[in-house]
Amino acid sequence: MANNFPSSSGTQPKEPALLHDLNEPLIEHAEGQLFLTETFKIILEEVLCKGTDVKEKVCEWKEPEELAVLLDLELRDTGEPQGKLLKRVKDVAKYSIKTSHPRFFNQLFAGVDYHSMAGRFLTEALNTNLYTYEIAPVFVLVEAEVLRGMHRLVGWTEGDGIFCPGGSISNMYAMNLARYQLFPEIKSRGLWGLPRLTIFTSAESHYSVKKGAALLGIGTDHVILVKVDDGGRMIPEDLEEKIKLAKSEGSVPFLVSCTSGTTVKGAFDPLDHIANLCEKYMLWMHVDAAWGGSVLFSSKHRHLMKGVDRANSVAWNPHKMLVAGLQCSALLLRDTTNLLKRCHSASATYLFQQDKFYDVNLDTGDKSVQCSRKVDCLKLWLMWKAVENISSTLERYIIFFISKYYQEQLSKVAPLIKERMMKEGTMMVGYQPQENRVNFFRVVAFSPLISQKDMDFFLNEIERLGKNM
Amino acid sequence: MANNFPSSSGTQPKEPALLHDLNEPLIEHAEGQLFLTETFKIILEEVLCKGTDVKEKVCEWKEPEELAVLLDLELRDTGEPQGKLLKRVKDVAKYSIKTSHPRFFNQLFAGVDYHSMAGRFLTEALNTNLYTYEIAPVFVLVEAEVLRGMHRLVGWTEGDGIFCPGGSISNMYAMNLARYQLFPEIKSRGLWGLPRLTIFTSAESHYSVKKGAALLGIGTDHVILVKVDDGGRMIPEDLEEKIKLAKSEGSVPFLVSCTSGTTVKGAFDPLDHIANLCEKYMLWMHVDAAWGGSVLFSSKHRHLMKGVDRANSVAWNPHKMLVAGLQCSALLLRDTTNLLKRCHSASATYLFQQDKFYDVNLDTGDKSVQCSRKVDCLKLWLMWKAVENISSTLERYIIFFISKYYQEQLSKVAPLIKERMMKEGTMMVGYQPQENRVNFFRVVAFSPLISQKDMDFFLNEIERLGKNM
Repeated sequence: MANNFPSSSGTQPKEPALLHDLNEPLIEHAEGQLFLTETFKIILEEVLCKGTDVKEKVCEWKEPEELAVLLDLELRDTGEPQGKLLKRVKDVAKYSIKTSHPRFFNQLFAGVDYHSMAGRFLTEALNTNLYTYEIAPVFVLVEAEVLRGMHRLVGWTEGDGIFCPGGSISNMYAMNLARYQLFPEIKSRGLWGLPRLTIFTSAESHYSVKKGAALLGIGTDHVILVKVDDGGRMIPEDLEEKIKLAKSEGSVPFLVSCTSGTTVKGAFDPLDHIANLCEKYMLWMHVDAAWGGSVLFSSKHRHLMKGVDRANSVAWNPHKMLVAGLQCSALLLRDTTNLLKRCHSASATYLFQQDKFYDVNLDTGDKSVQCSRKVDCLKLWLMWKAVENISSTLERYIIFFISKYYQEQLSKVAPLIKERMMKEGTMMVGYQPQENRVNFFRVVAFSPLISQKDMDFFLNEIERLGKNM
Repeated sequence: MANNFPSSSGTQPKEPALLHDLNEPLIEHAEGQLFLTETFKIILEEVLCKGTDVKEKVCEWKEPEELAVLLDLELRDTGEPQGKLLKRVKDVAKYSIKTSHPRFFNQLFAGVDYHSMAGRFLTEALNTNLYTYEIAPVFVLVEAEVLRGMHRLVGWTEGDGIFCPGGSISNMYAMNLARYQLFPEIKSRGLWGLPRLTIFTSAESHYSVKKGAALLGIGTDHVILVKVDDGGRMIPEDLEEKIKLAKSEGSVPFLVSCTSGTTVKGAFDPLDHIANLCEKYMLWMHVDAAWGGSVLFSSKHRHLMKGVDRANSVAWNPHKMLVAGLQCSALLLRDTTNLLKRCHSASATYLFQQDKFYDVNLDTGDKSVQCSRKVDCLKLWLMWKAVENISSTLERYIIFFISKYYQEQLSKVAPLIKERMMKEGTMMVGYQPQENRVNFFRVVAFSPLISQKDMDFFLNEIERLGKNM
């Protein structure tokens, strides 16, 4: 194969015979499009109609061994006929969790938005990559416009940003940018020779802060956990003490990762107060608003993030509270000095030619640590375009509801109720312990498909499932 | 909002009134499904029929300012009616690049596979997350089966792996795993106190190796570029010299990143030879087979990757040569000691409860540095299921063709031809310089939609576009 390439001296390919059986394209469009159309019908019926119907189950629980047989999971050397493949499509839909079901309270994503869904199908069909204007003219502009819209909500008139594959990666970007700004030589020389760097975040922040510190070579020991109050909010006084302590021990504090909407309690850290400390100690202020960021759409609730405009960076996942669909996750930056590109650029000549016939500043690829980057902005743009009076509409989405702690002595109650729940498939909600408290249910309720009846159902169903234990 | 949460002492929400306007769900399914159906029709017509028709243009070039107006890009506070939104959908399709067009030779992705497309639509509709069996029972099993299939092709009977958001991230994973295996304390303590770590890769390897080294705190200076031969393949003798040199300077070599299918020339490094050196010097052998990995499906061409079974890790993107659609990118590991999980785990209690009612080894989330992780395996599983005699079918895909270098004195020829090409929209192909050679066209030809006629067209069209310069 490698022999097929012209060598640097320009010799001809040695096996031109390879091209001989290429008289016709290899694809049958009509048959393929029929398959796709049939799949679309199954999606409409099984996922979008039955999957959102309260009379249907949220899940059709199967043990892994049984499910593998039902799906005919095994990959073989021989292909299957179209009819059999359509049965696979139907089975995948049947045995998958119906995350759009009104009684799916299990995760920080749920629901369905049809404009977003249309944007997602279109994105998949167009199958392109968000690194140059040349290859994605529409999406480069759409991404910039969506980022501008999000900037405005944060309170910035300008700035930078990028869509990332999830909030954890956005948080890592923030860490990498913060340390690069402080020590630009890190990019070429690495961490050697630099003092120990320290990150501060609340004890209830997302685990991705530690994951990021490990990946970036900073180490989880250098993520200092700041105490929280009863509501789960970072205590600024404890933050200041810990900053002082780290400095006195010879470490270099460089970043505070605040949380707007913690994963379990949904708490919002006091951003304004923390911003004062970041200014005082010259630290990068990052806000992990993966879950909570969408309150910025609500004039009623945006006060929860007061001070966010003073942050250096904000991670915000519209795939969560805004129902934009996985994945849709933006990192927003206040920076206007092209820090993102300076920090991440590699200037590959095959992709980012500087002698192009258009403004190469439109090529966003060098802002990313990825090369291929999925288009995640179109769906949000389309649903944003669709919403009548976005502020008041989105306010209705924003209802958090966390169940009361189950103060039973036995932590086994929640896991048992959960098992019964999954096997009956009537609803889905997650449980977990916290600090010295036993397992409790964390009900996440924000999907536009939920009504009061579903919340009543939730409480009654927990009671019913808990009988005869 | 934060006041709505019960505090740890169990007080009631203070604003139960919030639930009052929730008597009905907020969504109109019928209208939404109609919009989605209309979008599907547009996708069929504009993207899949016209977009793959040689009589139609590959792109409808517009300058950014003009395109912004045509799309009515701006996001406003008021919503648009369905008819207008459908026009947006149509316009997005119209002005986007037709990457499935037979005359799109521009990138390492192209073409369309309808079974994959069906899998992608289904994935989007099911909207779930690949971190626990509970939330993605079908996809956890499908991912494991697809990884098993890929392992077999690499030549392993067991191993580990994970789908990542692109090959660059897969390459970073390999770096992180390699250094963690050598110095497990890195995860908690970071790079401080450790000797300088060195990575080796060929001068023609992908730029993500340097990007990864920068992100991981290793630094681009510690990526040593090994010389290549005329065909663009790493020279093992130079590798050995550079390993010895680094050691003599007090560095710790820990990883060789080989390439199977370089980005510009499509060269395959001599894996067996490099494996000997990795064994001799006890280095982690990683193979970046993002582009070339798919030759493993071909009994005729898999010899190009002889020795890949001796690697510790392989990055392979079926979204490239296999036409699986962006993104579809796997990291494969020979390891059977749960290294991936040990290196990346954070054991979040809200997600990875250990008292679940099923085998928690099925929860894959702690293998990832992400939290939310998109489902990228279903489309590959479905197309794999569909292919009759996969080995011989895929062999037809595997045709590389790199155009002859334009040995003109002026490097401006290719950019000018490119400009004319884009503005007429007749085809798309990328150009770049290399070493001391001027700009040349890099024709990527592997899509199943291409026939001999399209290759003829390519050569004639370059000639036509180049007239009157």
